[in-house]
Amino acid sequence: MSRYINKKFVKLEAYTPGEQPRDMQYVKLNTNESPFPPSAGVLRAIDKEQVSMLNLYPDPTCASLKDAIAGLYGVERKNVFVSNGSDDILNFFFMAFCDEGEHPVKFPAISYGFYQVYAELYATDYRKIPLKSDFSIRIEDYFGNDANVVIANPNAPTGIALTKYEVESIVKANPDRVVLIDEAYVDFGAQSSIELTKKYDNLLVVCTYSKSRSMAGARLGFAIGNEELIADLEKIKYSTNPYNINRLTMVAGVAAIADNEYYVANCKIIEENREYTQRELIKLGFRVTDSKANFIFANSDKVGGEELYLKLKERGVLVRHFSAPDICEYNRITVGTREQMDILLQKIKEILKEKEI
Amino acid sequence: MSRYINKKFVKLEAYTPGEQPRDMQYVKLNTNESPFPPSAGVLRAIDKEQVSMLNLYPDPTCASLKDAIAGLYGVERKNVFVSNGSDDILNFFFMAFCDEGEHPVKFPAISYGFYQVYAELYATDYRKIPLKSDFSIRIEDYFGNDANVVIANPNAPTGIALTKYEVESIVKANPDRVVLIDEAYVDFGAQSSIELTKKYDNLLVVCTYSKSRSMAGARLGFAIGNEELIADLEKIKYSTNPYNINRLTMVAGVAAIADNEYYVANCKIIEENREYTQRELIKLGFRVTDSKANFIFANSDKVGGEELYLKLKERGVLVRHFSAPDICEYNRITVGTREQMDILLQKIKEILKEKEI
Repeated sequence: MSRYINKKFVKLEAYTPGEQPRDMQYVKLNTNESPFPPSAGVLRAIDKEQVSMLNLYPDPTCASLKDAIAGLYGVERKNVFVSNGSDDILNFFFMAFCDEGEHPVKFPAISYGFYQVYAELYATDYRKIPLKSDFSIRIEDYFGNDANVVIANPNAPTGIALTKYEVESIVKANPDRVVLIDEAYVDFGAQSSIELTKKYDNLLVVCTYSKSRSMAGARLGFAIGNEELIADLEKIKYSTNPYNINRLTMVAGVAAIADNEYYVANCKIIEENREYTQRELIKLGFRVTDSKANFIFANSDKVGGEELYLKLKERGVLVRHFSAPDICEYNRITVGTREQMDILLQKIKEILKEKEI
Repeated sequence: MSRYINKKFVKLEAYTPGEQPRDMQYVKLNTNESPFPPSAGVLRAIDKEQVSMLNLYPDPTCASLKDAIAGLYGVERKNVFVSNGSDDILNFFFMAFCDEGEHPVKFPAISYGFYQVYAELYATDYRKIPLKSDFSIRIEDYFGNDANVVIANPNAPTGIALTKYEVESIVKANPDRVVLIDEAYVDFGAQSSIELTKKYDNLLVVCTYSKSRSMAGARLGFAIGNEELIADLEKIKYSTNPYNINRLTMVAGVAAIADNEYYVANCKIIEENREYTQRELIKLGFRVTDSKANFIFANSDKVGGEELYLKLKERGVLVRHFSAPDICEYNRITVGTREQMDILLQKIKEILKEKEI
C-alpha cells in the first residue's frame, strides 16, 4: 500500500477469487464455470473479420446486445443494462443506491462474499442477516422497508433457492427500497424473477453469461428492471467506463442468445449430474443442501471441510472451501461433466478409505 | 433517474463519448481510433481454440500480459497494472487517491473531459488550471505539492506535449502527491515518462491499447508505476471487478506486444499523415497546434468550428467538435490514412468554396 491511498481504503479487504492455478491440469470444480464450450454460433461469430475490426471502439449503447436479451426475456431495450460481468453490475448497484447514510443495505450473512466487499468499499451501512440453521433464508427478515436488499437466488454457496412468490413478498414489503436479486445461478432449476420487474419498479434482477452460458472468459453480465433503475446504472457506467464491453464479447453475447436451446440443454445435463452426484455423496455419508445451482454444498462427519479440500487438491481435483466458521466444514463443488463427477466421487472414496485405515 | 439513487449523483453529468453512428458509412475521424487493423499476430492469437475456452474465467492476475508489457518497457511485473481500458484505470485512480478532503486534484481546464466527471463522481475537491493562450501547459501551475496532478501528455484535444524534463519537474515538485500522466497519445511523437517511474514513487503513467495499438474494440489499458501505487490499484480492482479483462483481450494484448514493430511503423505513418494534413490545412488558411498526437486541432477564420463539423458530417466525414467556449471554434480531427486525409481536405475545400460564393 502506498502512503497516497485514501485513508478509508486502508483497511478494505478485497474479494478473493477462487484459485485459477496454471501449474497443473486440475479437474477444476471450484469457480462454477460451465464444463461446456460456447455454442457453435458463438464460435462462428468471433471470426477474423470481427478481430480485424478491433481497431474500432465498440458501440457504447450496446444496442444489438440489449435487443437480443430483451427479446429473449420479453422486455424492452430500455429495461436492459449490460456490463463487464455481473460483478461490475453489483459494483454499480452499491455505488448508485447504497451509502453510509440514508441508503443502508442488508443481505444474508452467508452469501456471495463480494456483497460485503462492496458495502465496505462504499462505506455503506450494512446488515448481515443470519440464515436459518438449515441455511435457508427467512423471508420475513427482509421485510420492513428499512434497507435495500441484496439476495442471491439461488443463494451461494448453499444453492438453496427462493420461489418467485417469496421474492415477490420481499419486493412488495420494501416499496421505498431497491431489491436486487442476483440470478447468477438461476438457470439450473430455480425460478427467475425477471417477470416481476414489469410489475415492481424497485426490483433489479442481475444475470450473467459466466455460468449457464459458458462465457466466464468473455465478461458479460446484464440486469433487467424498471427503466429508471436502468438509467441510473447507465449514468454510473457512463461516469466510469462507458466502453466496458469489448467488440468480440458483444457479438458473442448476441450469438449466444440466438443459440439459447443449446444452453438450456446444457443446463439440464448439469442438473442431472448434480442430482446424480448428490445421491452418490449421500450414499458416502455426506449431507447436501437442496441446491438449485450448478454446484453442490456438502459436508460429512467422516472428513473435515478443509481436510477434504486439501486432499482433493493433492489428487488433482479443485473444489472451493471457505474458512468462515459457519461453513468451514463444507465444500462447494461445481457440477461438471459426468466424467468429472465420477473422478470426484472416486477421489472422495479413496480419501474416506484412507481415513478408515 | 429513479427515486432510489443516492442524492450525490442526482446532478452528476456523465461523460459523452464521441459519436459511434451506425446509420451510414462515415470517414470516421472523431474518436482517435487507429485506421489500421490489429497485427497479424493478434489475428492469429484469437483462434477457435481460444474462443472455445471462453467457458473458463480469465487469469485475474493477468500474469502473461503483465510480463509482456513489463518486458517491453524494462520494468517488473509488480510495476504493471492492467485493466479494462485506460478509462477504467483513471476511474480507479480518482477512487483510490482523490477525495473531498485531504486529497484534492488539479488538471488542465482544457483536457480530456472525463477527468472532471471522475472528480465529480467521487466528490473530489478539484481545480481546473487554465492553459496559456497558445493552449500550452504552464508547468509551474502544477508545482506546490498541494494536490494530486492529472495531465494528459500529449494533452487532448490540443495535441501539445510536455517534454520528459517538464514532467519530471512536476513530479519532483509534488513529492507528497501522486502525479498521473495519461499517455494515451504518447506514441505519435511525444516523449514517454515511463522511465521516470523507476526514480519517483509518486508517478503513475497510464497507457492504452486503444490508439497506437489498434485495439480500441478490445478494451485494454495499463499503468506503470511504483509497486505500492500498483498494489493500491489492484486493491480497488479486486474490490470492484477482478476479472475485468477477458480471455481474448488477454491473448491479443500479449500478441500485440510481440508485434511491436508493426505498431511503431503504423505510428510513423500517422505522424507523416498528420504533418501532411497540417501543411495542407495551413495552406487553406487554418491554424493548427503543434500536435504530437494522432489528431489535429485546427480552426479557421473562414469557417466556424461547429459549422465545419456539421458540414463535414453532411458530407460523410465525422470529426469531433466540443462546445466549450474556449475551444468551440476548433475541431479535433483524427489522423487516419492518407486516403482519408485527402477526402477530408477535399471536403473542406468544397465547404470553403461554397462559403466564398
